[in-house]
Amino acid sequence: MTESAPLAPGAVIGILGGGQLGRMLAFAAHRLGYRVHGFCPEPDAPLAQVTNRFTCADYGDEAALAQFAEAVDVVTFEFENVPVAAVDFLSSRVPVRPDPRALAIIQDRLSEKRFLAGAGVPVPPFAPVSKPDDLATAVLATELPAILKTRRFGYDGKGQAPVDSGGAMEPAWEAVDGADSILEAKVAFDRELSVIAGRGLSGETRIFPLTENRHVHHILDTSIAPAEVPESIREKAVAIADTVIGALDYVGVLAIELFLEGETLMVNELAPRVHNSGHWTIEGAVTSQFEQHIRAICGLPLGPGDALFQAEMKNLIGPAIEDWLTHMAEPGVHVHLYGKGEARPGRKMGHVTRLKPLPGKA
Amino acid sequence: MTESAPLAPGAVIGILGGGQLGRMLAFAAHRLGYRVHGFCPEPDAPLAQVTNRFTCADYGDEAALAQFAEAVDVVTFEFENVPVAAVDFLSSRVPVRPDPRALAIIQDRLSEKRFLAGAGVPVPPFAPVSKPDDLATAVLATELPAILKTRRFGYDGKGQAPVDSGGAMEPAWEAVDGADSILEAKVAFDRELSVIAGRGLSGETRIFPLTENRHVHHILDTSIAPAEVPESIREKAVAIADTVIGALDYVGVLAIELFLEGETLMVNELAPRVHNSGHWTIEGAVTSQFEQHIRAICGLPLGPGDALFQAEMKNLIGPAIEDWLTHMAEPGVHVHLYGKGEARPGRKMGHVTRLKPLPGKA
Repeated sequence: MTESAPLAPGAVIGILGGGQLGRMLAFAAHRLGYRVHGFCPEPDAPLAQVTNRFTCADYGDEAALAQFAEAVDVVTFEFENVPVAAVDFLSSRVPVRPDPRALAIIQDRLSEKRFLAGAGVPVPPFAPVSKPDDLATAVLATELPAILKTRRFGYDGKGQAPVDSGGAMEPAWEAVDGADSILEAKVAFDRELSVIAGRGLSGETRIFPLTENRHVHHILDTSIAPAEVPESIREKAVAIADTVIGALDYVGVLAIELFLEGETLMVNELAPRVHNSGHWTIEGAVTSQFEQHIRAICGLPLGPGDALFQAEMKNLIGPAIEDWLTHMAEPGVHVHLYGKGEARPGRKMGHVTRLKPLPGKA
Repeated sequence: MTESAPLAPGAVIGILGGGQLGRMLAFAAHRLGYRVHGFCPEPDAPLAQVTNRFTCADYGDEAALAQFAEAVDVVTFEFENVPVAAVDFLSSRVPVRPDPRALAIIQDRLSEKRFLAGAGVPVPPFAPVSKPDDLATAVLATELPAILKTRRFGYDGKGQAPVDSGGAMEPAWEAVDGADSILEAKVAFDRELSVIAGRGLSGETRIFPLTENRHVHHILDTSIAPAEVPESIREKAVAIADTVIGALDYVGVLAIELFLEGETLMVNELAPRVHNSGHWTIEGAVTSQFEQHIRAICGLPLGPGDALFQAEMKNLIGPAIEDWLTHMAEPGVHVHLYGKGEARPGRKMGHVTRLKPLPGKA
């Protein structure tokens, strides 16, 4: 088999990470006739429940990684904080898609922003901060208000601290524990959007309709798709997605979070994986983001990303899961629960999707 | 917990049988946050691949059944030839849905036909045949042509032999190996239809749109839904489904195969489970038959069965699986492969579903 031949049914897809994204990738992979082998440090993870092949080990466990590589035909990941060392280790033994290089770039906010700026994609002004003295210089680049963000391991607003106009910078530095960081201009955005793109082994790219997102306490609360935006904005978003996914020579599904301020579209951040703001595609699009990712990494032709419905996806966060039965009783609501135990505040326990006819198709 | 309280997320659904129907039930159960524990004699069954809880044992293994009963919150089955003894054994320990009584009636073609006739549902003329001498008497009831069918364990045309007008009856008797049988009048049907109904713990009933089916060599080849039939026929089918599912005091999804001859609708047979002719509901209906079954057996409110699209489902039987990549490349085709190894002739390896707008919604 050449590396670019499609993986036949029965081939084994290895997934690093065991959360709900891995769980939903497994559903899509199984539907297409593939086997799924999960790998993550937690024993009863959402992904572990839905496949009969699972390695519970640390990402630094090279013996476990080597066995995993033997057991699978392709490796992908479902969260971006998988250590690059683990992915590099695997990629010397088995195809890893997307490429570890994309993961490495995106894991580090500074290299991510430099990559984007270098590709000609608009990003908010930013500057590196690796010691307290850098802050004053960085502010010259970003102006205030700004946000200090750790370069690594941030998600859902973690590892971030605001620096207000005229405010002191020391508390922000303390809030990030003096970690290597970047200072980013705070964008007074009107709307938060995202665009999810898939790219196949052959380079073919399919872009899902733009999604509008609402965050609460830095966590995605609601996504609406297709977002109602002027055609000019949609075209800009598609051009950004095309540029970014091509420049990364990416294989798989990539999410691009965007700020819209007036007519200006800027990239907030990338996620080298399927994304919460794409969950609406399960029922709302011809091909779901999960199936698209599986198609891409298995070397299959991509599916159409067109919307079939106007969709609203709402996360069930922490105790919101207690309303599960209400959602089950609402006619036509699509309920997705992730098999997680404790409903800690901020924990994504599930989501629900509501569909309406597309405008003009009612 | 009372027996009728809804099962909460995290509860364990036990499924007897490990085929593709169990596999697709597991997808639906997992999506709703349940655990799935499969039970079947084959180790690498389609269902076994998609859950981390599986017992590989014979249906007569009472120790394994007892352990299984301990490990699950509700039991259901995905094929109708599970021994009633196993289901009875389990039902003394844990709720079994649908009730073993429905399974027992349907497993035996004679009791099935008598039940249907007793409920006032039209069926083709039939008569029991348990010894060669019965054949002549039976023909008085059915007339010829007729079909001799074993009372038990028939599926996909197995255990059936035609008796033509003016032909000898002995070859048919030999063809069924002298097993307890029934002789059924051969219906010169114009069309084969099916109707799939779900009934909840509370007795609420939801009926999916009528499906038209085409069989090749006694195996379902293609289903088209919603079937284009006169409203009067649709109403008759709904009335039959309502009558049958209510008379069985059934919980779960039940499939009813129908013959349409002129204006006459007759029941061919029942299947006490999700059914191949309902696979189109995965993409084509608001609620899939798999989710509906899980909702019913878990005591949840049922979902709407309305069609969202005009759907055509085609089975991939035996070597037809070799065309999998062609199907993957056809834009918007939904491909389902079952994780089976050898593509034996007649073996259902997967299916594909094509969608079009509903008439009047193009």
